[in-house]
Amino acid sequence: MTLQTNSAERVRTSFDKQGMLRAIGATLTDVQPGSVTIELQPGPANRQQHGYVHAGAVSAIADTAAGYAAQTLMPEGRTVLTTEFKINLLAPAVGDRLVATGEVIKAGRTLTVAQAKVYALSGENRRLVALLSATLIAVDHVED
Amino acid sequence: MTLQTNSAERVRTSFDKQGMLRAIGATLTDVQPGSVTIELQPGPANRQQHGYVHAGAVSAIADTAAGYAAQTLMPEGRTVLTTEFKINLLAPAVGDRLVATGEVIKAGRTLTVAQAKVYALSGENRRLVALLSATLIAVDHVED
Amino acid sequence: MTLQTNSAERVRTSFDKQGMLRAIGATLTDVQPGSVTIELQPGPANRQQHGYVHAGAVSAIADTAAGYAAQTLMPEGRTVLTTEFKINLLAPAVGDRLVATGEVIKAGRTLTVAQAKVYALSGENRRLVALLSATLIAVDHVED
Amino acid sequence: MTLQTNSAERVRTSFDKQGMLRAIGATLTDVQPGSVTIELQPGPANRQQHGYVHAGAVSAIADTAAGYAAQTLMPEGRTVLTTEFKINLLAPAVGDRLVATGEVIKAGRTLTVAQAKVYALSGENRRLVALLSATLIAVDHVED
Repeated sequence: MTLQTNSAERVRTSFDKQGMLRAIGATLTDVQPGSVTIELQPGPANRQQHGYVHAGAVSAIADTAAGYAAQTLMPEGRTVLTTEFKINLLAPAVGDRLVATGEVIKAGRTLTVAQAKVYALSGENRRLVALLSATLIAVDHVED
Repeated sequence: MTLQTNSAERVRTSFDKQGMLRAIGATLTDVQPGSVTIELQPGPANRQQHGYVHAGAVSAIADTAAGYAAQTLMPEGRTVLTTEFKINLLAPAVGDRLVATGEVIKAGRTLTVAQAKVYALSGENRRLVALLSATLIAVDHVED
Repeated sequence: MTLQTNSAERVRTSFDKQGMLRAIGATLTDVQPGSVTIELQPGPANRQQHGYVHAGAVSAIADTAAGYAAQTLMPEGRTVLTTEFKINLLAPAVGDRLVATGEVIKAGRTLTVAQAKVYALSGENRRLVALLSATLIAVDHVED
Repeated sequence: MTLQTNSAERVRTSFDKQGMLRAIGATLTDVQPGSVTIELQPGPANRQQHGYVHAGAVSAIADTAAGYAAQTLMPEGRTVLTTEFKINLLAPAVGDRLVATGEVIKAGRTLTVAQAKVYALSGENRRLVALLSATLIAVDHVED
């Protein structure tokens, strides 16, 4: 089993323990070295008062995609925690589903910076609805 | 009925329609002109893989508190949407409960800037776990 | 004369009035619709205490590149002001010169979101040293 | 000589080496443990094209005030670098002078989060023009 497979395995195992992401209906759809994709089905558990997907849910999938993208580049025994993120909400998050892809911009021993883009898909259309940048700090792996 | 009561009423009515906040276990505990407080009970529906409250849940209550703080200062028929926020996660979000208070920093006709602080309460202790700043844009009220 | 030429002209005329950018040694090197590049020669007027280019100077060229990128897409009589930006400083800003390119991510009637990347060039090497995202608001053009 | 005096001394010595801050006309006016104030006289070397103080100059004094506030709490032999900051520009930066005060929000061994507020003073009036939050990383002191 290669390191990358191990890394993807660790991301999948970790994702399955994320109670909140399950509660809001997110699924992990792709794990590559330095890039992770998470999808969300709009529904009652992730809506705000106007019927759009809540900014908190958009942020949750974007931040998680960015964090796991960073995680894929960590050596064994190391995990990451988000220390900060900023998100620009570009358009109302409505559509058949949301797709958040996180990409590592700069991997470091202590700090990693990653970015995520969230698209809303409606039929054939794809629209960028959010742009996130995050700083992740590497810490010794506890149990996740 | 005064304007402020109206405004608090509108915030409460709107909050009750927020499916996601209900799904993750958030409650609206205080509404003042320019200041709103939301609480969260840590539990399975808001945890991440290490057992802390998920950054997405911390962000959701912080962003919502900031947004409603801005909403309280809006004239009737106007509501707000978050255009961006940044959050610094200062310490793991663990405790008996989380308390997010949003405050308006600068109210404007088009844009309002608000801040939120999230504290984790454990017994007698109170610890600042997150600091958020957000920009809200005023839009014509649809139905919330 | 095309609209785009007009727009590039307006950006160049505006840039020449930027006292601060001149003071720190920045030059405007490229203006395309939705994309603007600004360069900076490291020197005494833009250094911090360790001899690197000051984060404030890196931010100034990144924010300006993002802002002018937004400006190129504005109709005549409208200009933009930065309402917020966030910058991740990825590596010490050292090199022969810094190159900041701003690109529009989402153009809107009221708000535009743009991003800028700053590279440090040293001989043949190019290294990403900063990533910025900004919100710009369109306002009626006074005199710039 | 007390630790605090040492710390204030180190901040003052470091500030004097900041070529850029000198170039744009900034002065260090107060250093307390966890809090630092920097002032700026609006003038040709810090203006943008509309005659306001350039967002880059506002950011430079705000980021520097936040960074030095963090620096005052560092043990000897350790210094800080800004890893990211976000600034909300709340009003045009015009006035007799700008006053930026940085305050530590959470001091840590590796990361410190600080905030800065920038006020514009005009005669008797004081107006909040910018709000910044920053993450600083502690590194071994080279020579500053």
